[in-house]
Amino acid sequence: MVKNELRQLLEDVKNNRVEISDALNKLKHLPYEDLGFAVVDHHRALRKGFPEVIFCQGKTVEQVAQIFNKLCQGTRSILGTRASREAYGAVKEIYPDAEYHELAGTIVVRRGEEPPQKGNILIMSAGTADLPVAEEAFVTAEIMGNHVKSCYDVGVAGIHRLLDKLELIRWAHVIIVVAGMEGALASVVGGLADQPIVAVPTSVGYGASFNGLSALLCMLNSCASGVSVVNIDNGFGAAAMANAITRLLERTEA
Amino acid sequence: MVKNELRQLLEDVKNNRVEISDALNKLKHLPYEDLGFAVVDHHRALRKGFPEVIFCQGKTVEQVAQIFNKLCQGTRSILGTRASREAYGAVKEIYPDAEYHELAGTIVVRRGEEPPQKGNILIMSAGTADLPVAEEAFVTAEIMGNHVKSCYDVGVAGIHRLLDKLELIRWAHVIIVVAGMEGALASVVGGLADQPIVAVPTSVGYGASFNGLSALLCMLNSCASGVSVVNIDNGFGAAAMANAITRLLERTEA
Amino acid sequence: MVKNELRQLLEDVKNNRVEISDALNKLKHLPYEDLGFAVVDHHRALRKGFPEVIFCQGKTVEQVAQIFNKLCQGTRSILGTRASREAYGAVKEIYPDAEYHELAGTIVVRRGEEPPQKGNILIMSAGTADLPVAEEAFVTAEIMGNHVKSCYDVGVAGIHRLLDKLELIRWAHVIIVVAGMEGALASVVGGLADQPIVAVPTSVGYGASFNGLSALLCMLNSCASGVSVVNIDNGFGAAAMANAITRLLERTEA
Amino acid sequence: MVKNELRQLLEDVKNNRVEISDALNKLKHLPYEDLGFAVVDHHRALRKGFPEVIFCQGKTVEQVAQIFNKLCQGTRSILGTRASREAYGAVKEIYPDAEYHELAGTIVVRRGEEPPQKGNILIMSAGTADLPVAEEAFVTAEIMGNHVKSCYDVGVAGIHRLLDKLELIRWAHVIIVVAGMEGALASVVGGLADQPIVAVPTSVGYGASFNGLSALLCMLNSCASGVSVVNIDNGFGAAAMANAITRLLERTEA
Amino acid sequence: MVKNELRQLLEDVKNNRVEISDALNKLKHLPYEDLGFAVVDHHRALRKGFPEVIFCQGKTVEQVAQIFNKLCQGTRSILGTRASREAYGAVKEIYPDAEYHELAGTIVVRRGEEPPQKGNILIMSAGTADLPVAEEAFVTAEIMGNHVKSCYDVGVAGIHRLLDKLELIRWAHVIIVVAGMEGALASVVGGLADQPIVAVPTSVGYGASFNGLSALLCMLNSCASGVSVVNIDNGFGAAAMANAITRLLERTEA
Amino acid sequence: MVKNELRQLLEDVKNNRVEISDALNKLKHLPYEDLGFAVVDHHRALRKGFPEVIFCQGKTVEQVAQIFNKLCQGTRSILGTRASREAYGAVKEIYPDAEYHELAGTIVVRRGEEPPQKGNILIMSAGTADLPVAEEAFVTAEIMGNHVKSCYDVGVAGIHRLLDKLELIRWAHVIIVVAGMEGALASVVGGLADQPIVAVPTSVGYGASFNGLSALLCMLNSCASGVSVVNIDNGFGAAAMANAITRLLERTEA
Amino acid sequence: MVKNELRQLLEDVKNNRVEISDALNKLKHLPYEDLGFAVVDHHRALRKGFPEVIFCQGKTVEQVAQIFNKLCQGTRSILGTRASREAYGAVKEIYPDAEYHELAGTIVVRRGEEPPQKGNILIMSAGTADLPVAEEAFVTAEIMGNHVKSCYDVGVAGIHRLLDKLELIRWAHVIIVVAGMEGALASVVGGLADQPIVAVPTSVGYGASFNGLSALLCMLNSCASGVSVVNIDNGFGAAAMANAITRLLERTEA
Amino acid sequence: MVKNELRQLLEDVKNNRVEISDALNKLKHLPYEDLGFAVVDHHRALRKGFPEVIFCQGKTVEQVAQIFNKLCQGTRSILGTRASREAYGAVKEIYPDAEYHELAGTIVVRRGEEPPQKGNILIMSAGTADLPVAEEAFVTAEIMGNHVKSCYDVGVAGIHRLLDKLELIRWAHVIIVVAGMEGALASVVGGLADQPIVAVPTSVGYGASFNGLSALLCMLNSCASGVSVVNIDNGFGAAAMANAITRLLERTEA
Repeated sequence: MVKNELRQLLEDVKNNRVEISDALNKLKHLPYEDLGFAVVDHHRALRKGFPEVIFCQGKTVEQVAQIFNKLCQGTRSILGTRASREAYGAVKEIYPDAEYHELAGTIVVRRGEEPPQKGNILIMSAGTADLPVAEEAFVTAEIMGNHVKSCYDVGVAGIHRLLDKLELIRWAHVIIVVAGMEGALASVVGGLADQPIVAVPTSVGYGASFNGLSALLCMLNSCASGVSVVNIDNGFGAAAMANAITRLLERTEA
Repeated sequence: MVKNELRQLLEDVKNNRVEISDALNKLKHLPYEDLGFAVVDHHRALRKGFPEVIFCQGKTVEQVAQIFNKLCQGTRSILGTRASREAYGAVKEIYPDAEYHELAGTIVVRRGEEPPQKGNILIMSAGTADLPVAEEAFVTAEIMGNHVKSCYDVGVAGIHRLLDKLELIRWAHVIIVVAGMEGALASVVGGLADQPIVAVPTSVGYGASFNGLSALLCMLNSCASGVSVVNIDNGFGAAAMANAITRLLERTEA
Repeated sequence: MVKNELRQLLEDVKNNRVEISDALNKLKHLPYEDLGFAVVDHHRALRKGFPEVIFCQGKTVEQVAQIFNKLCQGTRSILGTRASREAYGAVKEIYPDAEYHELAGTIVVRRGEEPPQKGNILIMSAGTADLPVAEEAFVTAEIMGNHVKSCYDVGVAGIHRLLDKLELIRWAHVIIVVAGMEGALASVVGGLADQPIVAVPTSVGYGASFNGLSALLCMLNSCASGVSVVNIDNGFGAAAMANAITRLLERTEA
Repeated sequence: MVKNELRQLLEDVKNNRVEISDALNKLKHLPYEDLGFAVVDHHRALRKGFPEVIFCQGKTVEQVAQIFNKLCQGTRSILGTRASREAYGAVKEIYPDAEYHELAGTIVVRRGEEPPQKGNILIMSAGTADLPVAEEAFVTAEIMGNHVKSCYDVGVAGIHRLLDKLELIRWAHVIIVVAGMEGALASVVGGLADQPIVAVPTSVGYGASFNGLSALLCMLNSCASGVSVVNIDNGFGAAAMANAITRLLERTEA
Repeated sequence: MVKNELRQLLEDVKNNRVEISDALNKLKHLPYEDLGFAVVDHHRALRKGFPEVIFCQGKTVEQVAQIFNKLCQGTRSILGTRASREAYGAVKEIYPDAEYHELAGTIVVRRGEEPPQKGNILIMSAGTADLPVAEEAFVTAEIMGNHVKSCYDVGVAGIHRLLDKLELIRWAHVIIVVAGMEGALASVVGGLADQPIVAVPTSVGYGASFNGLSALLCMLNSCASGVSVVNIDNGFGAAAMANAITRLLERTEA
Repeated sequence: MVKNELRQLLEDVKNNRVEISDALNKLKHLPYEDLGFAVVDHHRALRKGFPEVIFCQGKTVEQVAQIFNKLCQGTRSILGTRASREAYGAVKEIYPDAEYHELAGTIVVRRGEEPPQKGNILIMSAGTADLPVAEEAFVTAEIMGNHVKSCYDVGVAGIHRLLDKLELIRWAHVIIVVAGMEGALASVVGGLADQPIVAVPTSVGYGASFNGLSALLCMLNSCASGVSVVNIDNGFGAAAMANAITRLLERTEA
Repeated sequence: MVKNELRQLLEDVKNNRVEISDALNKLKHLPYEDLGFAVVDHHRALRKGFPEVIFCQGKTVEQVAQIFNKLCQGTRSILGTRASREAYGAVKEIYPDAEYHELAGTIVVRRGEEPPQKGNILIMSAGTADLPVAEEAFVTAEIMGNHVKSCYDVGVAGIHRLLDKLELIRWAHVIIVVAGMEGALASVVGGLADQPIVAVPTSVGYGASFNGLSALLCMLNSCASGVSVVNIDNGFGAAAMANAITRLLERTEA
Repeated sequence: MVKNELRQLLEDVKNNRVEISDALNKLKHLPYEDLGFAVVDHHRALRKGFPEVIFCQGKTVEQVAQIFNKLCQGTRSILGTRASREAYGAVKEIYPDAEYHELAGTIVVRRGEEPPQKGNILIMSAGTADLPVAEEAFVTAEIMGNHVKSCYDVGVAGIHRLLDKLELIRWAHVIIVVAGMEGALASVVGGLADQPIVAVPTSVGYGASFNGLSALLCMLNSCASGVSVVNIDNGFGAAAMANAITRLLERTEA
């Protein structure tokens, strides 16, 4: 419709129905999005192959269901993060094919064709308590169109368990390292791998872990190169960063 | 040479010069790196196209010169970061072709053939005071073998200056965003770009910037996706992360 | 009554019923408020057009009802903040015309004549999770006698949504910016607008948002000029500051 | 020139030299600033009556002089903050009429006609050690076109000194309160005045003042309404906020 | 009994029943408390006129009742702090004359003769939300044998309310100031009074009050002299400090 | 079995069934643990005499029971920490001889022969509120094979109670000091004892104890030598450190 | 003079030269201090026996000299704290009898008659590095008119050194405890003494002492009763608090 | 001499020169140390084999020399830590055989016979910048009578370098791990070794290492068991703790 307005204006200029000076003035005051910005933004969203994302935490079951409902007619997949089983129950009534991943706390509704498998993302975690964050990253990375593998419970206090995973490490294009407590896993993996590493500190731990501050600082100070960090417990954010990286592979192939 | 030792051992077994039980014992106690690990590590270093890196801060001019001297016979390029002009003077006596980048505080000695230009890295900074960190990232990314461009002084308080750079943003494979104070630039760029963004908080600011804590927290809490963060003032680390990403492009091309 | 006491004293002096030295002594020990201070203070309250304000959080339903009851005979409006629906139920039995704003958590009892519409206050928020704080500011600013408009969900990661609001921004005398997580919205709006901006950090976010510390530091370090900050989640305080500003408009008109 | 390009395009449309669909395409990709945004921004700067501002701290004398030199041809006044006497010496060679305020650490070069006196700004400070910050605010507020008065050394430990200043308080449109240590002055003044108060915490103090954190938290938690806060030691920022408020008075008068 | 043992030893030495060298050895290994230390300590407790004190928070109703029961035979009064009404119910079954102060959360069992009224302690608080802490201080100071008066809700934002209390301030030997949020009351009272002031920061407030940190820092940085601080919310501790001071009055009278 | 594989390989080389180059290749890619590392690790676990340890906090009763069940066939003892009585109920159905220590929150299942009594560990605590942490340390140290004694409630404010314990202090090989609030006990004990001291800060306290930060900093800054610190509330960790020390005694005896 | 004005007013009323209503009005607007407040304040200063106090830190030698000079005609003693030897040199030219205490960093000029010796203040410190703070307290307490004794280097790691000082402890009316690092001395002395204790944390220490934060938190969390705290390194403040306490002794004697 | 006094007293009792009641009294008031406490303490010092230790930082060259001089007649060795080369120069004039360790910043004066070699202490460090702290620990551990070995620069980013040191790790009785930045080395070594590990965080790093806080938190949250922590940069403290452990070996051998 913006296009139509613009076209009309140009035609009016062409047919002398509008003075050039008036047309100039109108153009100057058109809202910015009318000039294609939103379109660009839309393209960007599509190009990213990004699902619609709903952060469910802090919302009532009704609110979650309502938002899912609004997106019902869409052709993009939908990802609900930090969702309770109850929320899932309500969503399932709208989308009977909705999937729930208990550990990850995610609801997934798949729509449209499968996104192309862009890259290989490996998700490593230090302890079993880190699994919810790691699984959130897993589900997110997968629905964004990546091959995803995981290897959990490879904390640095048992370094040999980690050394057994070299093959898996070599397979990955990007590695997401999820760790709480001292968060040292990011540095050790960073020393073994030459791929980009996205580190996710978790709030796992007690006492002086200060809800993830300990792991966060540790990862920011990593002595290994090629490591960067997202927010505490932000499994989704890590997967989004990893996906931004694997999207480059697509681009170079095209 | 490890290979030779191993081969010799196997040949000795074959020729009955060594008992199998003795060979078993020897194998069990071979240092780990003798079994190819170091080789892998070596390969990794080479594959990375990484220069030798020397962190000069906190070292005397003599110490810096001495370390550069030790590396003198190598065929890899050398990068000295956080180096003073005095340190450069001393290095220049050893390597007359050493280059100094005043703002970045880097010394560069180029050796070997030029690394292949792996990818396009754009470095954006919010204010002129962030330039030393941004330039450190620039020099590092460039010597690691990337096309690097920069656009500085595009802070969010003058959003139109940023909107003029959309073309440049589209050019990049990875964007490094350097910002102190409130560090909001990372979020805004993250909203405009779909490439991976490596955010570097700087200690620029005063009062409640608390030496970069303000920008660090801001960037970790970015509402844009595809943003990850390195340590405060760590221009080198951001470039290393960005380079880890562009290296993937090479890999897919091969 | 103070006046009467004073008048009596002066008359006693005049009629020689009190020695001047005794009168002097009495004057010196009169409580300070008796000398007009309280009156000034009273005038100030009236001039402000301020409602009675009750902070309901941490009070039982009974306590809230009891305080509302005590104010029953007044002619000033009453504003209860951070009030639950239960508290509202109890208040409604006393004031059947009490209004409840669920999202804002406010109870409003309107009394006296409508205050004059002093100025235009625009309330912007970055995300939907910031709405309770934004709406508290909205209700407060409105009952204090301002034209209030809001535009929500204009976070910096989608900068074009913000650019569409320039008209609205121009309309405002004061802008209240409500944002959690990285709180960057204050800086961006500060760059677009030349009106005073009152920034409210919210505790929205997780991990390294540290209950609003992240947004607070970000806003304090804003690179835009004309931005000042109130306490985390303090929607009421922001509206009170904005109202103190628009009150100036009244003053200049008079 | 943008205007010329646009006019040319429209004329080409009119004269059938360009197809409407091509014109549409061109319009969609015009850089945003070309459509008047920068102009708006320029107008905004002028309307603000803002001087050019140079933050001198951390810059060499040469750099400061160079920046002043670049602005030499301008007709706007120039304000240099956090400037040393040495920097002033260098600036004076370029602008012989440059003024230096030792305590405030400011260099002022006045150009153009005097800005209209917009409003009355009162600057209060708790102790003599807060004077540099208070004076920076003073000079800034004055050069932006305000009547400015100050009353210093009215800390809350001697409350009667403050009570003597009620007349001055009534005079002001906006009050800037500068205080370090416990920063309590903002609350006390906030209780006496009904004008908007911009509080500036200073890093004055020792031990548990933690470089201004103490005063900052105190001011953010003020129990008085109509108080908002800027960054620690940010005298300039407080004046800019105050000026954004007094600018409203102009607007209503027009 | 210790005395008896010692006397026996000395008599044995005197009567040659024990060798001096053996006696020496015995003396060297006598536990320290046997030599009067515990006695001194006991005397100290008595001299303090201190009640038995039980911190009830975090203990079950049964545990509280059990501890009160153990003290049942004593002749000293008992003070339970941070006690719930349920705990009081259980204690009342043991001591039918136990008193409960709802607001203060204290249980008091009076035993022995009334302690002499040592001194005058005034308890001031800034807001009504500070009352639980203020009342804990009140009950504690009273049972330790002091005249106690209170004046609440004299926050600094309404300074005239405070100025009305000068008479009360003059009455006190020690003043306990209880305040949350910005905690400025301690400084203002410190400027009006020349008696020692014990400041108690409370966790009252939200956002950047950080559970009392704001008030704590404010009070530690008080610009008034004669102010010292106890732990956040520690009404009991403030009263104990105040009592230690008024005890001096007794001592000088004796 | 690894040994067998290796032996087979060597025999194949010897018998020309495998080419040396193929053997070399195989050796290079053998997982690291196959070369004895895991064995070493296994030995280490056994030598430590360590029980299996399950951190029960944050796990459901079902999950705890399930993990205990998996370990059912083992011959090592099992220690569950931070376990609720409910979790114990479920475990008891699997292991009817499981023991529960209410205060310590531990479940113990004893298997295999009693470990040798390695050393004497004394556990001291400052207050009764520290008991859960102290008892966790007690149970852990005991099941790891140590003589354990405790002396509780010897806080520094009653120094004579501590001086009575010199005999006990002399008995110990290692002393675990558990203290919250100001954590000063570690320093005082450190001054009396010449054995290694493992200090455990607890989150006991309120206000400015900041959940154990106060005790943690105090212990790290101890002016006594021979003191080191574990995480806040980490009774298990302290016992594990103490046990690592007493294990040395075994080693020297062997 | 105020008195005179008032007397004149009353006489005018008496003599019908002023209407009662006009007199009423005048009284209401008299500045507060005119009604004796300042006098009270003056009396308070005198009654306190307080010297004039100058905080020299951060002032130039010239500024210090200038301030001392302004006070030259006074009859009260002068105390300069945190003064360098250079500042002392300049002061000595004005007051040849000025005394300098190197360790304390204080300049003392004695004027008027010796203040009465109000009470006994004992200053204890944990280590020799705490001496500057302890000596500042010593000089301050002494010039304010107290008997002062000190006992230094009685840190808790050598508890017997402290136990030897019981006699000295009994002598004191108030005890100032100065300690850095873990600050445990306050608690231990608090357990031995029943006098009020003013604790001064110092910034002595390194690493996790965080410039005195460690000692500050420790002292605030003291398990001993009768302990309160002043700002880090604030020897002056501690003495002022102690003096406020001993002043009570005077009052009761009068 | 104490003994003599006591003996005299007992003899006086025996010879009826002193009444038993008087003797009782005297005994009760004897300073505590007179009863053997100091002797015990003295024994403790000797038994520890501890050198005299002088913390030189913050002391002038003269002060250091003076303290060394005072200890001149002693037969115990002397250790000066954090000493400059200048301080060493002054000490050397008193003790010509004094040794200086530049990197460690230690001065050592050996006296008495060599202490017995108690145990094997291994000192590991992550980076070369950690060497000053590591070497301080080395010199301290050695002069206290231990076999000490070091292996530096084994950071976790190059894990194979660490795996080569397994032999060395097995040799040690205690391992001191020195690391800054992310401090992960302690966890990794803790996973490889079953000996007690004393972790020393260092202030090495920049930005979000926050002067060692990052490494400190990381080490406190170590997921490996048998790890405890000393203060940031406290190489001396780590060695003292390690020595307290190895002293146990002596004790068991005796």
